[in-house]
Amino acid sequence: MSRVLVIGCGGVANVAIRKCCQNSQVFQEICIASRTREKCDALKKALEGKTSAVITTEQVDADQVDQLVALIQKVKPDLVMNIALPYQDLTVMDACLECGVNYMDTANYEPEDIQEPSWRAVYEKRCKEEGFSAYFDYSWQWAYQEKFREKGLTALLGSGFDPGVTQAFCAYAQKHLFDEIETIDILDCNGGDHGYPFATNFNPEINLREVSAPGSYWENGRWVEIPAMSIKREYEFDQVGKKDMYLLHHEEIESLAKNIPGVKRIRFFMTFGQSYLTHMKCLENVGMLSTEPVEYEGRQIVPIQFLKALLPDPATLGPRTVGKTNIGCIFTGKKDGKEKTAYIYNICDHQECYREVGSQAISYTTGVPAMIGAMMLLTGKWKQPGVYTVEEFDPDPYMEALNQWGLPWVVSENPVLVE
Amino acid sequence: MSRVLVIGCGGVANVAIRKCCQNSQVFQEICIASRTREKCDALKKALEGKTSAVITTEQVDADQVDQLVALIQKVKPDLVMNIALPYQDLTVMDACLECGVNYMDTANYEPEDIQEPSWRAVYEKRCKEEGFSAYFDYSWQWAYQEKFREKGLTALLGSGFDPGVTQAFCAYAQKHLFDEIETIDILDCNGGDHGYPFATNFNPEINLREVSAPGSYWENGRWVEIPAMSIKREYEFDQVGKKDMYLLHHEEIESLAKNIPGVKRIRFFMTFGQSYLTHMKCLENVGMLSTEPVEYEGRQIVPIQFLKALLPDPATLGPRTVGKTNIGCIFTGKKDGKEKTAYIYNICDHQECYREVGSQAISYTTGVPAMIGAMMLLTGKWKQPGVYTVEEFDPDPYMEALNQWGLPWVVSENPVLVE
Repeated sequence: MSRVLVIGCGGVANVAIRKCCQNSQVFQEICIASRTREKCDALKKALEGKTSAVITTEQVDADQVDQLVALIQKVKPDLVMNIALPYQDLTVMDACLECGVNYMDTANYEPEDIQEPSWRAVYEKRCKEEGFSAYFDYSWQWAYQEKFREKGLTALLGSGFDPGVTQAFCAYAQKHLFDEIETIDILDCNGGDHGYPFATNFNPEINLREVSAPGSYWENGRWVEIPAMSIKREYEFDQVGKKDMYLLHHEEIESLAKNIPGVKRIRFFMTFGQSYLTHMKCLENVGMLSTEPVEYEGRQIVPIQFLKALLPDPATLGPRTVGKTNIGCIFTGKKDGKEKTAYIYNICDHQECYREVGSQAISYTTGVPAMIGAMMLLTGKWKQPGVYTVEEFDPDPYMEALNQWGLPWVVSENPVLVE
Repeated sequence: MSRVLVIGCGGVANVAIRKCCQNSQVFQEICIASRTREKCDALKKALEGKTSAVITTEQVDADQVDQLVALIQKVKPDLVMNIALPYQDLTVMDACLECGVNYMDTANYEPEDIQEPSWRAVYEKRCKEEGFSAYFDYSWQWAYQEKFREKGLTALLGSGFDPGVTQAFCAYAQKHLFDEIETIDILDCNGGDHGYPFATNFNPEINLREVSAPGSYWENGRWVEIPAMSIKREYEFDQVGKKDMYLLHHEEIESLAKNIPGVKRIRFFMTFGQSYLTHMKCLENVGMLSTEPVEYEGRQIVPIQFLKALLPDPATLGPRTVGKTNIGCIFTGKKDGKEKTAYIYNICDHQECYREVGSQAISYTTGVPAMIGAMMLLTGKWKQPGVYTVEEFDPDPYMEALNQWGLPWVVSENPVLVE
């Protein structure tokens, strides 16, 4: 008998909760809490009669540790699944420590206001010492290592697809396919088409950050930073076709560099269509992506917020998005003294996801691994006091669960390598 | 001794008035009237001491015939120079008829609200009967032919560059270079660079209309209409270089088709840079060019108006625009029984225009011919009761004045033809 408290009720949480309900042998009681309780109630209503899991709802402001503590003490969950914004990872971890409850999330912490001086100082120090200037990194959450260990609690960080499943692919390759992994290329391809000339799946501010932040990769024991979007490759993805992809910084590189012994290079590539990039550039050129308010007819208007109001509501993209995602890892290394290559990947169909859970593949590929990570902790398959990322645990039960719960993966030998 | 009343005090009117002041032997008294009298006063102040012309100012709403009549009766001009918006051509013509004064303008009438039912009906009838669907045409003003003739008054329509100078080029070619003109290609090239990724010289609504309206050309006695921007050519312009240009509808084709006997084809091309077109397309795609208000934070906001507020103020482009315009006409036909080709064009330098009159070449090339057209009427060189376009008068004094007043032209034999 296990009970979870889910913080958050957005797109990814919706998928995770629906998958928990499908898996009610493990998830017998689910409490859904978010800032807007009505969203939780609506989901509860949609699921009633379709699951044997018992669902309750609560209201909480996840920025407030005291509210979280009171909620956890009331609900008494075996695990807190934090599927809210990454800005709230630390407050939720603090509350879990105070209440003696295990923790998990899907994306690592980043401060909400990167211009806030105390955070800015930490960020700049980190840029200098570590050599990459991404807005997010694991140091904030790794700092909780001793606290979780002392309390005998487990915190599982980043159990989405990337981060998350990609790290399980790496642990699996390390355990079964290679004696020594030399290089890892993580390839995140979204071949979906929503039929609009331009729309975004989520906040355009985050999209802008993706395409305007410097990229970085790990090579020979250090970070190499490159100008934004300056390394471009074309790759022919199984069941999707040829796509342009660009080297970005991505959080899982940071933990993989520490946890895959002897790895010489790790890179992350994400596909972007030329039309998407052109729209972003033009909108940036005219000032429409600016977060600075401008005076208009006597009122302050933030251009990117006004743009958001013009663009199609991301919630309407699900039913009309067709095509597939293909996300995975290409490895090179040695096995039994011989050179070897392998590619582990998952393909996910937007329309099939939508039919199953009412969300397209972007939310699906993150929400399913959230449920699976929680299952690993609740069933005791992954249990070790401290703060860990996915590749630090035995990949076998996680990989088996991916096949079982909607994210089947394949291993391809001798794949085309990325130059 | 002559006195003119100038209606309008925008960019083109500014140039025209400054050129009138340079030519104070003809323009001895100039009354400037616009909706905002302060603009007129500021220009008067800027010109004081620099001209022997006597300048006065007035306030007028040019949409109101009675206000215009009262103003004309007060000022008693020899000519009304209408350099306001083309929406007001008919009210100004009505007032001139009532007061018995000659009239001229720089662009032909178009109704302000093309969706207004009575105008829409006229427009749709015209589309059907004439075969082109431009928002502007001469029929509205040609309908005044008899009224002006009966009163012994002259109305000169469209004395800017194009329309205007391009028609004088045609009349000159007809008079001096050809026995028979077979084809005319009007090429309007702006090689100016303001250094911004995107900015517009004038209202983005008008820019949008240019690139989204169907194109049309005259061929073998009828109009051929084509989808917007569907005929593209590259041309190497003297002193500017290679530019992409697109076939558009343009008003002077309509009168030239009637007034150049035996002409088989007339086309109009305008240059647009790929970057400009890409920005227009992306902005259109996300809804930023829409004139329909959207609800935002409880208020109605018109996207294209908000965009205008973000873009650089057109008035700031003048000082930073470098490069040249090259506008002219390529003719093919026969002279003395032989095939012949010729290209008459003017080159204008943005920075030189700015130094002379405080405006770049776009306003300059329209404002100077406005002064010259007025001079033709005031000096009696062009005088004939009725409503006329530039090519219907003797081109020689007009062409001579272009050379004298800042728009020198050249005739090139055997030019590269447009395919």
